[in-house]
Amino acid sequence: MADSELPTRPKPEETPAGEAPAEGESKSASKSAAKKAAKEKAKAEKAAQRAAQEQAQKAAQNTEDTAKHLYGPIPETEDVIPSTRFSELSEEHHDKEVTVVARVDNARVQSAKLAFLMLRQQGQKVQAVIAAKEPISRQMVKYTGGLNVNSIVQVTGIVKKPDTPISSATIQNLELHIQKVYMISEAAQMLPMQVKDAERPPPDTTEEGPQVDAEGAPIVTLKTRLDNRTLDLQTETSQAITWISSGVSELFAEYMIKSGSRWIFTPKLVGAATEGGSNVFEVKYFKRNAYMAQSPQLYKQMCIAGDMESVFEIAPVFRAEDSNTHRHLTEFAGLDFEKTFRSHYHEVLDFAEDLLVFILSQLKVRYSKQIEIIQKSYPKAGDFKLPKDGKALRLTYMNGVNLLKEAGVDVSEQERFENDFSTAMEKQLGQIIRDKYDTDFYVLDKFPMAVRPFYTKADPQDPRFSNSYDFFMRGEEIMSGAQRINDIKELEASMVAKGVNPNQEGFEDYLNAFRQGCPPHAGGGLGLNRIVMFFLGLPNIRLASLFPRDPQRLRP
Amino acid sequence: MADSELPTRPKPEETPAGEAPAEGESKSASKSAAKKAAKEKAKAEKAAQRAAQEQAQKAAQNTEDTAKHLYGPIPETEDVIPSTRFSELSEEHHDKEVTVVARVDNARVQSAKLAFLMLRQQGQKVQAVIAAKEPISRQMVKYTGGLNVNSIVQVTGIVKKPDTPISSATIQNLELHIQKVYMISEAAQMLPMQVKDAERPPPDTTEEGPQVDAEGAPIVTLKTRLDNRTLDLQTETSQAITWISSGVSELFAEYMIKSGSRWIFTPKLVGAATEGGSNVFEVKYFKRNAYMAQSPQLYKQMCIAGDMESVFEIAPVFRAEDSNTHRHLTEFAGLDFEKTFRSHYHEVLDFAEDLLVFILSQLKVRYSKQIEIIQKSYPKAGDFKLPKDGKALRLTYMNGVNLLKEAGVDVSEQERFENDFSTAMEKQLGQIIRDKYDTDFYVLDKFPMAVRPFYTKADPQDPRFSNSYDFFMRGEEIMSGAQRINDIKELEASMVAKGVNPNQEGFEDYLNAFRQGCPPHAGGGLGLNRIVMFFLGLPNIRLASLFPRDPQRLRP
Repeated sequence: MADSELPTRPKPEETPAGEAPAEGESKSASKSAAKKAAKEKAKAEKAAQRAAQEQAQKAAQNTEDTAKHLYGPIPETEDVIPSTRFSELSEEHHDKEVTVVARVDNARVQSAKLAFLMLRQQGQKVQAVIAAKEPISRQMVKYTGGLNVNSIVQVTGIVKKPDTPISSATIQNLELHIQKVYMISEAAQMLPMQVKDAERPPPDTTEEGPQVDAEGAPIVTLKTRLDNRTLDLQTETSQAITWISSGVSELFAEYMIKSGSRWIFTPKLVGAATEGGSNVFEVKYFKRNAYMAQSPQLYKQMCIAGDMESVFEIAPVFRAEDSNTHRHLTEFAGLDFEKTFRSHYHEVLDFAEDLLVFILSQLKVRYSKQIEIIQKSYPKAGDFKLPKDGKALRLTYMNGVNLLKEAGVDVSEQERFENDFSTAMEKQLGQIIRDKYDTDFYVLDKFPMAVRPFYTKADPQDPRFSNSYDFFMRGEEIMSGAQRINDIKELEASMVAKGVNPNQEGFEDYLNAFRQGCPPHAGGGLGLNRIVMFFLGLPNIRLASLFPRDPQRLRP
Repeated sequence: MADSELPTRPKPEETPAGEAPAEGESKSASKSAAKKAAKEKAKAEKAAQRAAQEQAQKAAQNTEDTAKHLYGPIPETEDVIPSTRFSELSEEHHDKEVTVVARVDNARVQSAKLAFLMLRQQGQKVQAVIAAKEPISRQMVKYTGGLNVNSIVQVTGIVKKPDTPISSATIQNLELHIQKVYMISEAAQMLPMQVKDAERPPPDTTEEGPQVDAEGAPIVTLKTRLDNRTLDLQTETSQAITWISSGVSELFAEYMIKSGSRWIFTPKLVGAATEGGSNVFEVKYFKRNAYMAQSPQLYKQMCIAGDMESVFEIAPVFRAEDSNTHRHLTEFAGLDFEKTFRSHYHEVLDFAEDLLVFILSQLKVRYSKQIEIIQKSYPKAGDFKLPKDGKALRLTYMNGVNLLKEAGVDVSEQERFENDFSTAMEKQLGQIIRDKYDTDFYVLDKFPMAVRPFYTKADPQDPRFSNSYDFFMRGEEIMSGAQRINDIKELEASMVAKGVNPNQEGFEDYLNAFRQGCPPHAGGGLGLNRIVMFFLGLPNIRLASLFPRDPQRLRP
């Protein structure tokens, strides 16, 4: 059995029922009693295991090993046997031989003649058992039960139906009776955390250091997970989340391509900080300074001025904001699009709504298994509700203000167009809309001009408002978009009105694009990580990023 | 007629044949004679045009305008008429009314009663004509012929078959007889270059300033094009190139997704300069330094160690190399993939070869029209040759060395594994292989270990070589890849052998990934812009980037 920095967790089914805390006991008293009992239990188990291991060792030393060719380093001469994936295993395999390549999730010597492996493949778990019986030697049993956790092994064995379902495995109706076990990649004896401990969701607190839960199992904090992200990615939940993330970009690209849009790559290294100087990362660019693009906004519009009609981009976005919240990253995946329209920006808004409905509904179709796995760990938010008729719910900003007002919220600043909704208001509005319209996805149109950037087109009917929109999931913003001003005079006037100097360095090429004629257009920018986070109801955006970046975190 | 900074080019068909330089004349003499003649010709044309315009003006002043509602700024009350795209126009439209939205490519007053427009839509051109005849007024003719070039207009008219094909249009068998013309977006009178002048490929020299070619037409240098990229993107050739670029990423994503690979986003902001400190951009990251990722190499491998099995990324790659060549950019679009394999890295190499054959052959299927357009401007390189049997040609590095040796090239350094092929050698080898095997795409396998990075797996049969490969198009490298070392001890030894310190900051998380067990894997990284450049035979990689970045260029 491999040692590790964290104590081994006893299986829940092994904990006597009597140890469960009595109802009504104070939480901390119950916790500390449980901890103590769990510790003693773990100690006793360890001692028993040590004894079994010693016994196996002794037995192994006394006999000649007749199974040497059946285990150990993978022989170079070994023919490559086609391996079966866990996801392919079914009852049809009963009593048949299969070969699998998997991680050791757990290894345990039961006696000199018996050992167990829990094998893991992309989060799925299958139990394997090895018994010393011709040609299997006691040495081979000892080797198998002593494999370092997380090593990658090739195991050949017969698939058997267990007497009772293996509750600690994810595939519970079969087990593997080991015939051969070869090492493919050996993990170190000491791991900074156990993958099986990271299967349980992190606590809400970000407090550091290993802690133990009521059942004596180690609690792995979000920080420990992210510090050891390669291990954390191996959990069933992380595997599922990374598939959802992959799915969002796949569906975005699929929809955009089908619509006849062109895939573009705009520069991330830009010569000037045009979108607000303080939130931009500065780069040493040979003998001068450059900046990391905060969005592809100006370049998307230049592509439209360049007659590309409809464009989209999937690329990192960089924000030098010192925001240390659950939903801010300094680098995230942006899904951007920009399109011309014939007569009204609602042509583009209709398109964008259909795009989001497509992505969110197809996630449910194509990734239902992954969603189910994630909901086991993060059940709190519940299923993501889409509008029943397949059309997005569209309200105006003023509709939103009035809904909040009816609910008794002070929206006087919002009514005077002095401030956008606060995050708390957005969340409350999300709840009101969910209750009233039974949807977690909706759109607010016609934001006040005062709260939007200079390139936003004012509403020609009422210039206090603008032809702009935000998209929301569970009351949090995932996209901002608008009709853009395409007339040079109107654009320059809007810049001046917003306190942006049109003659500032970096705007020359952008403004020239309009001086050279530019068709009416609108677009938007989506945050991929936010879509994943809110769709799944994850408590932290870092769980929806492979290797998250925030003001404190630059590694791994 | 709109003025512009550059002289108006007389149409080739208007140039008397006698002006063509006599054969045998010295190049410069012929050029200067032609220039002079062209200038005189242009001068005469301008004078004639001015006279026509004055005449039109005079005529217009003397009568009341009965057509006021048929032209000018687009009326807000105007019903939105469904517009027809140039690509949809056919002989079926003859004698029918259509409405189009397009750029003014050229506007010309012929007389007080007659004016011509050349209309452009994504590079395609259609001629429109307006004649003063009830209800069309002379004022409307004057307005139409005087439209600023590059303005976007909505034109309604009757499609007619012209007596002779319109040779200066791309759609030559029809013309539009104008009934209404409304302004959608007006361009300035002065443009830094004319789109129609940028339709001709830039000269090989990068000399600055406007020049005139043998026919008196302005030559637009690459620098002028790139400085005014929004205008340059409007040419038929640029439109086609940006479609090919879009197609390469579309096909890459399509193939990877179909293979079951997961789409990933790895961080571009990294904490340490792990892949060679001098070629990396430094970023101010709050109170410390960060760096721009030079490739997703280490992160792709960490995803594999995180049990993701097959991953791909489409993202910018940043190289702080001070290389000012025709094929280097400081920022380009990288297409990366990494995959586990069962027994031999050739499983992944087979996959990658099929991927490239898929991309290159599907480009020919899906973008044949665009390729045809581009070949008109860049015919030199010829059609891109793919292997006839649909399987990539795979040679070894030593095969390549021997082919060069047979051709009399000094390859003594390459035979001693002291240096990789030089660019000149690669090009020569490309020509040899094209002649011998009739393909522009091929793979070299088994590069010497000495010329590959530390994470490359040595060939177990002969450690002088490695399990690594390069992909070539027309003799230029577009991809580098290899089996990666997945054993921690082997990896650390390889780092030491290559003079890389495993204890250097930034390697900790990468090396831990291997200490925690990592399956055998291989992968590669493609440069999208290079694929586009070499597939199309473009003379400069900047033509294959929307807004190119090089040591001198940070704008637009």
